[in-house]
This record gives sequence, C-alpha cells and structure tokens, in this order.
Amino acid sequence: MKYRSIAVLLTAALTGGICLAQTAAVEDFKKTPTTQQEKEYPQVNSERKVRVSIPAPEAQRVQLDIGGVKYDLKKDEKGVWTGESAPQDEGFHYYQLNIDGASVPDPGSLYYYGASRWGSGIEIPAKDQEFYAVKNVPHGQLRETQYYSNTSKSVRRVYIYTPPGYDKDSKKYPVLYLQHGMGENETGWGNQGHAGFIMDNLIAEGKAVPFIIVMENSSINMSGMPRGPRPAGAPRPGAGQPNAAPSAPSNGPRMAGPGGGMNFAAEFEKILCNDLIPFVESNFRVVGDQAHRAMAGLSMGGMQTHSIVVANPDKFAYVGMFSSGTFEPSEIKDIESFKKNTKVVFMSFGGREGGAARIGAAADAWTKAGIKGVSYVSPETAHEWQSWRRSLHEFAPLLFK
Amino acid sequence: MKYRSIAVLLTAALTGGICLAQTAAVEDFKKTPTTQQEKEYPQVNSERKVRVSIPAPEAQRVQLDIGGVKYDLKKDEKGVWTGESAPQDEGFHYYQLNIDGASVPDPGSLYYYGASRWGSGIEIPAKDQEFYAVKNVPHGQLRETQYYSNTSKSVRRVYIYTPPGYDKDSKKYPVLYLQHGMGENETGWGNQGHAGFIMDNLIAEGKAVPFIIVMENSSINMSGMPRGPRPAGAPRPGAGQPNAAPSAPSNGPRMAGPGGGMNFAAEFEKILCNDLIPFVESNFRVVGDQAHRAMAGLSMGGMQTHSIVVANPDKFAYVGMFSSGTFEPSEIKDIESFKKNTKVVFMSFGGREGGAARIGAAADAWTKAGIKGVSYVSPETAHEWQSWRRSLHEFAPLLFK
Repeated sequence: MKYRSIAVLLTAALTGGICLAQTAAVEDFKKTPTTQQEKEYPQVNSERKVRVSIPAPEAQRVQLDIGGVKYDLKKDEKGVWTGESAPQDEGFHYYQLNIDGASVPDPGSLYYYGASRWGSGIEIPAKDQEFYAVKNVPHGQLRETQYYSNTSKSVRRVYIYTPPGYDKDSKKYPVLYLQHGMGENETGWGNQGHAGFIMDNLIAEGKAVPFIIVMENSSINMSGMPRGPRPAGAPRPGAGQPNAAPSAPSNGPRMAGPGGGMNFAAEFEKILCNDLIPFVESNFRVVGDQAHRAMAGLSMGGMQTHSIVVANPDKFAYVGMFSSGTFEPSEIKDIESFKKNTKVVFMSFGGREGGAARIGAAADAWTKAGIKGVSYVSPETAHEWQSWRRSLHEFAPLLFK
Repeated sequence: MKYRSIAVLLTAALTGGICLAQTAAVEDFKKTPTTQQEKEYPQVNSERKVRVSIPAPEAQRVQLDIGGVKYDLKKDEKGVWTGESAPQDEGFHYYQLNIDGASVPDPGSLYYYGASRWGSGIEIPAKDQEFYAVKNVPHGQLRETQYYSNTSKSVRRVYIYTPPGYDKDSKKYPVLYLQHGMGENETGWGNQGHAGFIMDNLIAEGKAVPFIIVMENSSINMSGMPRGPRPAGAPRPGAGQPNAAPSAPSNGPRMAGPGGGMNFAAEFEKILCNDLIPFVESNFRVVGDQAHRAMAGLSMGGMQTHSIVVANPDKFAYVGMFSSGTFEPSEIKDIESFKKNTKVVFMSFGGREGGAARIGAAADAWTKAGIKGVSYVSPETAHEWQSWRRSLHEFAPLLFK
C-alpha cells in the first residue's frame, strides 16, 4: 500500500508537471555548448541531468522549468540557489527559471528563438554529436540578407547557406527551401539546428552534393520584417511531448490552433513562389528548375511543405517532412506527371512521437507508386531538435543525385 | 533646510545608484525595435523613459537596472510588477531586471552580447535613426563563416559584410577590419551596431564606395572558437559613464585592467596578420594592398587598432578610433614613409565622454603632418553604441576614395 501510494504520487508528479524532489546526482557536471562562455552554469552530467545555479538571496522559491516539469532549487548560505532536473533526452531543449513566480531566462545560458519567444536553451551532449560538430573542414557561409516582398509589402530577412566553394567557382547550384516549426523563425535551422555544420561535414565526407539552403520565416507577419538579432529556438506544437517547452510560460507561446499550418501555408506559399524563389534565383547562382529545387520543413514547416507541394506539384523534385505527419500518393491528382519530375518523398519522426509508426507504410506507398519513398525514425527522441538535425542529416544525402 | 536635504538625498540617489522613486511619466509608451515581437514590454515614451513589466506574484522586490541605477517597480493586484527609469540617452543600452536579488534578463527584450554576457538591450528611438533604418534599398549580406587559425589552433567564427552587388560583379573590393569593444564579440557591429544597414544606406545614397567589412573577436580566447548563436552587446570599459551597463551585475563583466587593450592587441595582431587577413584575401574578392585596407574599432577595439597600426605602419591606409583615445603623429617612427601610404586618421568620442575635448587638436596635428586628420563628436551620447554607429557613419564616407 505504501509503495502503491508512492507510485501514484510519482505518476501524478510526472504527468502533472508539479515540483519534484530529485535523487542525488552523479557529480560529473560540466558546462555545455549552450552555456555562456563567461558563466559556470547551466551544466549537464553523465545522467543527462541539467543543473542550474543562480544567486537570488531574497527569493522565497526558485525553480528550474524544463520538459514541462518544474524542479525546486535549494538555497545555500550565500543565497545561491542550485538544483537539477531529471534526465533529459539527448539534444537541444528549451527551459526557463521561475523566481518567486516570475518566468525568466537563465542568465547563464545562450538564447534561442522558440515557443514564440527568445529564451534559454540547453544542449544535452548526444552520442552522435559529431555529425553537427564544428570541425576543421571547408566551411560554407550562413548569410543574412534582406529582400522586398511585394506580397507582404515589407523588407524581409532571409538566411541563406552557401556551401564551401560557392565563392570560388562559377557553377550553378541546386536549392533546398528549409522551414522551421511553429513558434520558431528563420534563425532556427542555423542556430539550434546547426544546418550549416551538418552540411559542411556531409560535404567534406563526400556524402552530400553541395547545395544552397534558403531559410525564411513562414510564421507570417504581414506587418513587416521579422526583427531582431539572431539565435533561435524550437517549435512546441506537440502538446504533451515529454521534452517539449518549459511548462506554462507566463508570457508564453501563442500558437495557432489545429489547421494553423494550413493557413500559414497559403500565406507563405505566395511569398515563397512570388517573391522568395524569384529573389533567390536572380541573386544567387542557382539552377532554376524543378529538378534542382527541394522543399522540407519540421513540424508546421513540414505541413507547409506538404500543402505547398500538393498545390504546386511542378515546383519541387524532393520533399521532406520532419515530424509533420504523412504524405500519400493519393493526394496528388496527376500522379503520372508528378512521377516524372519528383524524385524523393522523405518522412521522419522522433521515435517517441506517435507518428513514427505510420511513415514506413507511407514511404512504401510512394515507392510502389514509382517515386522513391524514404522513412526515418530518430532513436529515443521526441518532437525536438535532435530529431530534426538527424532528419536533415538523413535527407540531405538523398538530394540532387 | 528641507529643500537642501532633498537635494542631498537626490544627489546621493543619482550618484550612488540606489533606488529612485520616479515622477509620473508621460503616457505615450510604445514597444521598441528591441522588444520581442510577441511581447508587450519593454516600452519607451517620448521622454525616453524605459518602462518594464513582469508578472512575479510571489516576489518581494523587483527592480529595473539600467545605466548604473536600480529603479523599484510596483506590484498591481494581479502580481504584475511595472515601473520606469529616468530618461535615457538616445540609442542602445544594456539593462537587466532584479527579482528578489537575482539579476536576470528581461523576458520581453531581445538579447545582445555585451558586458561579457548575453542579456537584455533596449533601443531608445533617436532623432537620427534613419541612417541605420532597414529600407527598401539594395541590401548587402552579413555572412557568418569559420576559418582555421594557426595562431589559436582553433576554428574561429568571423562575420563578413559584403556590399550589394558583390555577388553579381567580378571586381575586387577594399576591406575594413572593424573591431568591437571590451566585453563584446564579433556579433556586436552587425547586431546592435547595425553596420550592414548603415553601409546599405550610405551606398544607396552614393555617400560611400562599396567595401567589405570583416568583424572578428579580438577578446582573444585561445581555447577555441567563440561559441553560440548571434546577437551581441556593447562594451562597458568606461566606468562611471552614466548610460553604461546595468549596475553591479551579479554574474557580471570580467574586464581586464588598464592596459588590457594593449595585451589583447598583441595576441589579436597575430591572428589578424597571420590568419585572418590571409583568409579574407584568399576567400573573398579583395584588393590585398595597403591602399585598399582600413582598420577601425570602438573603445578597446580602437586601442587595438591604434597599437596594431603603430606596429604595422605598412598595413592600413585608413585608421579609425571610436571612443578610444588619441593617436599622435609623434608615435610613428618613419612619418615620411607613413605619409605616402596612409590617407586618413579618424578619431571620435561621444560628447559626454572626457576624451571628446582632445581629438580636435590630435586631428589637426595629423593634417599638419600631411595626413588627413578627422575628428567627430557625437552629440549628447556617452560611451555607447549611438556614438559608435554615428562614428561609422562619419568614417565610412572617407574610405577608399
């Protein structure tokens, strides 16, 4: 009876996001790549627990809020509050601190845009982190520039990855249009996604052909240019995902309801087709035909990819949907024509996501229909950046070959 | 006697950075360009007062910490704390919140690197803000890339501004090496400095010739690549400047003592001359001679420029020192040779800085020595970004003509 009560309490704690007392942690905590260089915390240990520490001598309660759970910190005699989370999945997660009821960024972390806000992020070192590590290989460039969109009647910011060698040769390159998720922006793939380093490493290993990546903001803001400096964060559309956003951010995410992806897609489709693709094709050395154009996205960005490809079956030869549901051949009206010009349909999910079970059959359906269908499931990750980094790493080698 | 006591108290409050009660503010507060798009605060009014607001229902005391002064906020019945600062100078300032003794970023602001930390920044709209506004003109690119430094034995990050047209023509461009100040990094000029927009606008108006700008990190970290995503902040070496850093940041700046600029210069000089200039000259279309090379910097970056030019009088034809002291012809050993190849020595200060009074005479001394000496004083600004944005705006039109 005693044990059963504990189990019930524990279940309530895990599902309800209430305060958890932690068992003693292994004392091998280290700073992570997302800790500010001049700061000592946050840290992560070999159990993948996150430890934060902040001086707050007059505070009554300080909590670490990560993965939908709030963990109480403890105050020492100097007024410094310290404490740990339960083990987190490998990869990148959002979090925040709560000081006497105020939800604030951790002053020790780097900041990323996600969950519709700039805030703290933490990197839990992953077994496979080498594929996005910064190595002494030829590096491409991540270029921030602006263009005028006649659709939005505003100057808009876009990030463009050009591969190593782009500035030295005179050839034309294929292009991948790569979208972020809901609550994110055009900085996500470059910052927490490490898209540039993933491509630099794949190209250095001869596993991917060099191509350009275009990253724009598909959370349409018709009032003007997306503002502010770089870094960014991950999307949190997957309510109930165990490693998703901090719980109940008080100034938190404002997400569109179900179907938001589709509405966004219609708006973004105009900007993409009428303004962005023409801008890229007249300002960069690219081959401007279907065979040399790909589109992919994560979560909402994959749903946008999905609906834009269905509406424009003659625009993209490669389609990638990361944690974005399934795409079936039956959705294409003229499959014979689509087959001639479309080369790959790629679908992925994190292994902890519900959709993971369905994409294998959908990929098989594509292959049977005469277009290469590929599915990928990221081991032991949820609706989060490690799934999407791995998805790009799997998708990129399939392109433009 | 009563009034005298109040005056003494007020003086103590203004100079000692203690809590200030504010007089009623004009109620025309608006969000600023440095407020997160999804957030309502921080705001600024026509008196240039900063208003912040944060829910912190359980807190005992919440303060706004800006310009070396802490302002008490007031709690409403919903537990939301709100309050204003005294009027701030036009331009960009760092600030933070203090919640029951914890110094944290404002969750409503964008974040910048300065004072040796990523944290909150606020833009006070300036009368002359048009010169760095995002306009519908041809835009250059701000490129983030990596290169291997044999000096630091590490892969280092560098930002490179290429002017509009660089990708379309095949001509070679001159280059400005532009350094940040102490406690800042390579993201400062692109983010809070708006170097790219200043150049885009000057070029569109025909006031500056197009050139490349290279921005690296001269706060040398030999242990590896400067990490983390973009944005950045301003340097706070000028202790006692009224609009400098937030007061006493608890995880705050670690600045080198006097002379730090010189030590940093010697280390950075090796990286610049042996690794960075060769990287730029072999990877970008630049004219690799003295006549087409300029160096400038703000505060510590200007001191580094100063000492690097004295040590390498054959490297740069244009020299810019923004809030960085004075440079005299007597410091150059072979002035006859220097005169043949050096075109401009530019020195500037904010009008509220002590050094402003001295640069006119120093500029005259250069002109008398046969090299164009130029001085510039930014009206009503201190040791801060508005001084440096204006300095770049004055310096750039003098280059490569």
